[in-house]
Amino acid sequence: MPRYEPAFGMDVPRFAGIATFMKLPHVRPEEAEGVEIGILGVPFDLGTTNRPGARFGPRALREAASMLRRLNQATGVDPFALAACADLGDAPVNPADLQDSLRRIEAFLDGVVGRGIVPLVAGGDHLTSLPVLRALARRHGPLGMVHFDAHTDFYDAYFGGFRYTHGTPFRRAAEEGLIDPRRVVQIGIRVTLYDGEDVRFARSAGVRIVPIEELVDRGFAAVMAEARAVVGTGPVYASFDIDAIDPSQAPGTGTPEVGGIDVHSAQRMIRLLDGLDLVGADLVEVSPSYDMGGLTAWTGANLMFELLCVLARAAARRRADQASS
Amino acid sequence: MPRYEPAFGMDVPRFAGIATFMKLPHVRPEEAEGVEIGILGVPFDLGTTNRPGARFGPRALREAASMLRRLNQATGVDPFALAACADLGDAPVNPADLQDSLRRIEAFLDGVVGRGIVPLVAGGDHLTSLPVLRALARRHGPLGMVHFDAHTDFYDAYFGGFRYTHGTPFRRAAEEGLIDPRRVVQIGIRVTLYDGEDVRFARSAGVRIVPIEELVDRGFAAVMAEARAVVGTGPVYASFDIDAIDPSQAPGTGTPEVGGIDVHSAQRMIRLLDGLDLVGADLVEVSPSYDMGGLTAWTGANLMFELLCVLARAAARRRADQASS
Amino acid sequence: MPRYEPAFGMDVPRFAGIATFMKLPHVRPEEAEGVEIGILGVPFDLGTTNRPGARFGPRALREAASMLRRLNQATGVDPFALAACADLGDAPVNPADLQDSLRRIEAFLDGVVGRGIVPLVAGGDHLTSLPVLRALARRHGPLGMVHFDAHTDFYDAYFGGFRYTHGTPFRRAAEEGLIDPRRVVQIGIRVTLYDGEDVRFARSAGVRIVPIEELVDRGFAAVMAEARAVVGTGPVYASFDIDAIDPSQAPGTGTPEVGGIDVHSAQRMIRLLDGLDLVGADLVEVSPSYDMGGLTAWTGANLMFELLCVLARAAARRRADQASS
Amino acid sequence: MPRYEPAFGMDVPRFAGIATFMKLPHVRPEEAEGVEIGILGVPFDLGTTNRPGARFGPRALREAASMLRRLNQATGVDPFALAACADLGDAPVNPADLQDSLRRIEAFLDGVVGRGIVPLVAGGDHLTSLPVLRALARRHGPLGMVHFDAHTDFYDAYFGGFRYTHGTPFRRAAEEGLIDPRRVVQIGIRVTLYDGEDVRFARSAGVRIVPIEELVDRGFAAVMAEARAVVGTGPVYASFDIDAIDPSQAPGTGTPEVGGIDVHSAQRMIRLLDGLDLVGADLVEVSPSYDMGGLTAWTGANLMFELLCVLARAAARRRADQASS
Amino acid sequence: MPRYEPAFGMDVPRFAGIATFMKLPHVRPEEAEGVEIGILGVPFDLGTTNRPGARFGPRALREAASMLRRLNQATGVDPFALAACADLGDAPVNPADLQDSLRRIEAFLDGVVGRGIVPLVAGGDHLTSLPVLRALARRHGPLGMVHFDAHTDFYDAYFGGFRYTHGTPFRRAAEEGLIDPRRVVQIGIRVTLYDGEDVRFARSAGVRIVPIEELVDRGFAAVMAEARAVVGTGPVYASFDIDAIDPSQAPGTGTPEVGGIDVHSAQRMIRLLDGLDLVGADLVEVSPSYDMGGLTAWTGANLMFELLCVLARAAARRRADQASS
Amino acid sequence: MPRYEPAFGMDVPRFAGIATFMKLPHVRPEEAEGVEIGILGVPFDLGTTNRPGARFGPRALREAASMLRRLNQATGVDPFALAACADLGDAPVNPADLQDSLRRIEAFLDGVVGRGIVPLVAGGDHLTSLPVLRALARRHGPLGMVHFDAHTDFYDAYFGGFRYTHGTPFRRAAEEGLIDPRRVVQIGIRVTLYDGEDVRFARSAGVRIVPIEELVDRGFAAVMAEARAVVGTGPVYASFDIDAIDPSQAPGTGTPEVGGIDVHSAQRMIRLLDGLDLVGADLVEVSPSYDMGGLTAWTGANLMFELLCVLARAAARRRADQASS
Repeated sequence: MPRYEPAFGMDVPRFAGIATFMKLPHVRPEEAEGVEIGILGVPFDLGTTNRPGARFGPRALREAASMLRRLNQATGVDPFALAACADLGDAPVNPADLQDSLRRIEAFLDGVVGRGIVPLVAGGDHLTSLPVLRALARRHGPLGMVHFDAHTDFYDAYFGGFRYTHGTPFRRAAEEGLIDPRRVVQIGIRVTLYDGEDVRFARSAGVRIVPIEELVDRGFAAVMAEARAVVGTGPVYASFDIDAIDPSQAPGTGTPEVGGIDVHSAQRMIRLLDGLDLVGADLVEVSPSYDMGGLTAWTGANLMFELLCVLARAAARRRADQASS
Repeated sequence: MPRYEPAFGMDVPRFAGIATFMKLPHVRPEEAEGVEIGILGVPFDLGTTNRPGARFGPRALREAASMLRRLNQATGVDPFALAACADLGDAPVNPADLQDSLRRIEAFLDGVVGRGIVPLVAGGDHLTSLPVLRALARRHGPLGMVHFDAHTDFYDAYFGGFRYTHGTPFRRAAEEGLIDPRRVVQIGIRVTLYDGEDVRFARSAGVRIVPIEELVDRGFAAVMAEARAVVGTGPVYASFDIDAIDPSQAPGTGTPEVGGIDVHSAQRMIRLLDGLDLVGADLVEVSPSYDMGGLTAWTGANLMFELLCVLARAAARRRADQASS
Repeated sequence: MPRYEPAFGMDVPRFAGIATFMKLPHVRPEEAEGVEIGILGVPFDLGTTNRPGARFGPRALREAASMLRRLNQATGVDPFALAACADLGDAPVNPADLQDSLRRIEAFLDGVVGRGIVPLVAGGDHLTSLPVLRALARRHGPLGMVHFDAHTDFYDAYFGGFRYTHGTPFRRAAEEGLIDPRRVVQIGIRVTLYDGEDVRFARSAGVRIVPIEELVDRGFAAVMAEARAVVGTGPVYASFDIDAIDPSQAPGTGTPEVGGIDVHSAQRMIRLLDGLDLVGADLVEVSPSYDMGGLTAWTGANLMFELLCVLARAAARRRADQASS
Repeated sequence: MPRYEPAFGMDVPRFAGIATFMKLPHVRPEEAEGVEIGILGVPFDLGTTNRPGARFGPRALREAASMLRRLNQATGVDPFALAACADLGDAPVNPADLQDSLRRIEAFLDGVVGRGIVPLVAGGDHLTSLPVLRALARRHGPLGMVHFDAHTDFYDAYFGGFRYTHGTPFRRAAEEGLIDPRRVVQIGIRVTLYDGEDVRFARSAGVRIVPIEELVDRGFAAVMAEARAVVGTGPVYASFDIDAIDPSQAPGTGTPEVGGIDVHSAQRMIRLLDGLDLVGADLVEVSPSYDMGGLTAWTGANLMFELLCVLARAAARRRADQASS
Repeated sequence: MPRYEPAFGMDVPRFAGIATFMKLPHVRPEEAEGVEIGILGVPFDLGTTNRPGARFGPRALREAASMLRRLNQATGVDPFALAACADLGDAPVNPADLQDSLRRIEAFLDGVVGRGIVPLVAGGDHLTSLPVLRALARRHGPLGMVHFDAHTDFYDAYFGGFRYTHGTPFRRAAEEGLIDPRRVVQIGIRVTLYDGEDVRFARSAGVRIVPIEELVDRGFAAVMAEARAVVGTGPVYASFDIDAIDPSQAPGTGTPEVGGIDVHSAQRMIRLLDGLDLVGADLVEVSPSYDMGGLTAWTGANLMFELLCVLARAAARRRADQASS
Repeated sequence: MPRYEPAFGMDVPRFAGIATFMKLPHVRPEEAEGVEIGILGVPFDLGTTNRPGARFGPRALREAASMLRRLNQATGVDPFALAACADLGDAPVNPADLQDSLRRIEAFLDGVVGRGIVPLVAGGDHLTSLPVLRALARRHGPLGMVHFDAHTDFYDAYFGGFRYTHGTPFRRAAEEGLIDPRRVVQIGIRVTLYDGEDVRFARSAGVRIVPIEELVDRGFAAVMAEARAVVGTGPVYASFDIDAIDPSQAPGTGTPEVGGIDVHSAQRMIRLLDGLDLVGADLVEVSPSYDMGGLTAWTGANLMFELLCVLARAAARRRADQASS
């Protein structure tokens, strides 16, 4: 059995070797015995209505993430010491059929979640979250969610009735009972709207929307304190759309919106998820063909590392709870 | 009625004004009385199985084409003196539904072709050619075709049965009787294949495939002499996939293949279409997010200009024939 | 008569169609009956003494602005519901003669302002503001001005007596009585100077200069409160030089200066212009050949949208005032 | 045992999954039972005296090569049907010690060659060839070599005595008896020289240098006929420095030289290696930080595919010879 | 004797002429009579363990710095009026031998410092600081240091014992007694670590580390007040690693770390070094091949200008002290 | 007196030191005693009617040219052994006044030519050639010219009477008697024209125009044989517009035209100028803001090196003739 730890460090140069997530061993879910957190890609962007390309996100994130080191200086967390981690490869997709892709992704995630592995997903566009939530809700019931994004992704339909795009995943997730809107908080929402119907729907369903102006005015600590209260003690999903970040720090995405969250605040907001009952997370909408010098992938990889740290802490806590019970 | 001539020249700087194709007046097909050649965009790339983005091709081609001047120095042709030309805008598309998009594009083209306007189409991915051929074949019957490309686009299906991608348009066009395979020649075909089934099918149907090696060894003049013989005197369509060109001269495309046709030869091959009964043409697969410094769009715009010159000559000839008969 | 509203939305993809500002109908000023706000380009950069290229700004801003949606989420303003808006095309210029260009631009603006249309101008370099101010002052008298910039643009002359450059427009405007220096505030001024004569002149004439250090220390709300007091109740012009913004968020400009205003603050400062008697605005110095991934154009387009919102509010208020009087 | 065939094709999108060379299974040399051709990376550039960065070459080549398909259309060769192929990962290197790196690389290659696996090496700078040749010569004795390059790499020493740089590998290889200079041909040599000592040495040792002017004047077929005669029937190594290619087609390299070989000719020259007793090959000097849009990596991956085809043909021939003897 | 002032201004365009630092006269140290501050390059990056290229930093910084003007608007300082400044060219290096390079650089700096010239050094990677500190400590004894960086650079050794890399200069400097760790403050430290040994060593030696989180929470003014107290009244060196800055504002560096210092704060922190007994400074790790649009070089040049201003103030103060004593 | 030889070689890395042309000593013309060939920049682009930026050409060409070595491998020429060469710096320009700039440039060139120094000029846009020709014709009388370009630059006037642009220099030069049109040959002319008046004028005046089609069909050797006959034995100027080269090899220029000359042919055509009585040369229209990865500057620097070789041969021949007479 491979040791589920990264190969990077002072002994092997970080630029050498095949690019897996954080240079972790690559195993398929069905062989991933003992793995507690599985990092996996979903090379899917058929939900994109404007600038496609997030299908190349997993590749770019793997490449970038192999440059990370193992210890989080700010928090002291070494996630690989807390939980056995592996790169589970990519979920299968069909680039010529959206619904078939959603089915394949969901089945792959079922295989992951069904083995008790906590998924950390690299998208793909934001519709990726839907099959992931389906698999997670099957195991955990309706989830709370902390969602970082420039957009609510609570639209109903595009172009006369098309209901599955990267602007609609959480409308569908709410309809399907995968998330509990009253335990959902959205942070960083901003800019121009078609008509505002998405915002009205979300608010009426109980979602707490924190626009960028409120985030800047109140500060990230206050906002996160409220977010933690909103999601409460039940199982929680964290979804991070890279377009939440300001496009100067994350240009490589399909729908950049100016005036976004700075990376420093984002890192600290993710750290403040610590203590929640996190059961999965994703980082989506990295679109390398729009990136500049790999900056977006590098930003995304660092945010995935922060997500991994809080997921590893939650996994270790659950393991300790089970051991003591 | 607007004068259907470009606004560029020594009086107005080429960088000023709204970017229409070659700075032509923009009119909708239903208002395009007197227009003989209509340049139009098809912002569609749902047929793309690998690197999407050709939906942004028409924008980039308009921007680049506004830098052209009016007189073809090599041939002496001034297309705007030969035929009334206009920018007809973009065909409607539905970015969330491939088949609905094909229907909308075909209907738009029907409106163009039905008014006797010769279409010069800026794609979009290569599946764009299918609805254009449907509209043209409805008027002219099965067409001959001179097709410049790195790939045959004669595949049957992808990913277990998906039959409408940018790798399949001419398989469908042959099946639907839109083109006569025995009057089709493909130039510039090269590189790696999945299994070669596309080539075997095309050849067995009578298509003349000229691989890049043959083109280089025999020279463009000899190849075009044969191409003209193959398509003969009937109505002919010219389809130019920008990936026929070497990626150093046209990097901005979804499926670049190294070792391609040089632009100089391509310009001269298009000029050698003069004299054929050309009833339409397209330039497809320009994908600006992969472009570098606008080079691909500029190459594409110049090739569209060469296509326009031979289309204008054909249109003028037909007008003269009608006048004399 | 065309409906003066944008064509974007959920029905037509934002990437389709010819790129006009915010996908508005394109009409020439002389045909723009009923238009209340006219967005127009000035493809002019002969005033640039260092890195030229802002002549390509209008093209890039149109391209980017076609990606906007219609509703300002932060303020709830839908400018197109408040005022009839159109793209008036580009002012004519002569790329070989600076003074002739200034005359042509002024005449074009006279045609706009003379019809009672409020101009929202996309430059061009900052000398663009001079002929715009000439046309506006002819109608409104000396204007107050809120000016966002890294530089004062109050220089007297360059290279031994050349008095018309993008560093001198407001010196000329003050001399010509187009602006009232005591009702002018400049925000974001910073970095190295040749000799400081520009700053000394501006201050002695009564201009309120807010350097970047003061802006950061006091915060944008306090600074804007003062700015509103400075310009008072008379007619006001807003001039936004994109180099006011930090070059990480707006690299595509001729004279970038590090340590600039962040876009979020800029958006909110523009919103705080609401309530002033705004009679025109410009966004200048976008230079696409220095841009990276279209980020600057996208930032500029968003700031133009914010300017449009406050211009539309002012226009609606004036219309209401007239109706009630 | 894994099937040693690529995972790409019509069933799995080429952009999905972890990037190995041509999507081959990844096995370590010590586990590579049955593998006949091993593709491996050497992330090493400590021999670079000017623009470093080739240490990132293997990553970029893996990423690009995963886009290839399996059948060589020009020759009809399917290398994966001819020989069992695998990605052997990267040779170990020490980025802080040149000589230690050379030792580690040589030991890794000994492990490959010692198992009878034919190596296809992705550099790394051109000093990479030295430890590869050491391992191959240990098994096969002095090798003939067909070497494509802009430079001879036959320099003696740099900067007062430093004898191991990417400009000296073949001087060392000749001194160490790894190559037989009379069986070496260098193709594409050009441009400015420090003093010409390298050329004089190489020629006096019997190396056949074909400058770019001679290649263009005689044509690649005539040159390759001579090259085949020069290397004769003994074991042959093929070394391809990507800077042999014109920088418009391969900008991403440390020492680009204008006026180079075009990719089409290079592809055909490699195909004309068929029939030689090829025992190994490399493709070196791809330096991604200087690349534009991945073009160089894509060119390099295609040339590696051509090398693989002739290596596979040679391997199959040897297997057949062994079977029949 | 040349006037040691820059040639830029309103008389000569900033883009004209050969690019020296701030368009200063270029003199060799041995001819630099009367020069008080010498700006010099160290084109050295053999200490880089990951992404090399900082050897090209001096070129890029000279190019960018020629765009500066002479007067610091924020502080009113004109450094060229306070001290005679010159471009001393580049220190010699041997790109094939690290230790030989360190010796050459140290000897060159001895020639500078020995003539009483205050060095302002443009790296080169951060190992550049070591030979500079050796030369300065020879004259001034152990130095205090204000160090801006994302990393401590207090590692002991890499890859099994290699003790001279860009991650180790200050460990060596402390061991050699060149710096007094109790008078060292490091600002901006952040992100992932291999194992944290560097931080533990530095802290135990008395170094004051200010992580980015503390800098953001307390503000730059409070941090700098403490930093001034830490370094006290003795001779002080300022070392600025460009990777201290956020990668959106300084992408062109070998080891970018997200969530960094913004340039505005950095400018103001450097200004707050005024009053310290500064005896030298460096700006290191600008790596142009990773830069985008020259932004990093421009940021670096501006920070060098701020360093020059405080160095010039210190030099003028020492001159005044000597005159009055 | 400085030795007028380059500093590059095996002793000093090519990336170190201040960037002068080919690392030659920098001297001002008035101090350039003994210099036979002076390389100088003209940072001027006020003649550009479309995409400006060639004012930055000299900087980029110096940077690139410092990477050259000294020996021309193809011809065996070492220009620095044949003639004393220096970098004379940049001619003065006034970026706010075209005519004043032309006067300053001409005066500077008078100072160069008047000292018997042969100028090799790095532009700047093509109007740069006019003041250079004025200075040269003052000394040598009307010149023959070999002119490589995509455009004739024989236009009369733009935008209603403006007679001094980069499209008109040779019309003016012919009118002023600086060149003898019957001894002028233009190579590489191509693409779209406004109206063809420039071509008709040039041909009627006796200019020999070789369009790209003729160059490709006849080959460069035959064309150059004719060119040498056309210019004959009198004094000759060589003017190389970088847009003669295909934009894939020289994208960084204001008016790229597809289907251009390849660099290899260009190098060999310049070599075939050997034997002519060359009295000066220029390389113009390199515009770095449109360049990609420095490729255009590198191409331009290599072509300048080839020009230097033939200029040095001519200078050495003249010196030998004088010595023997």
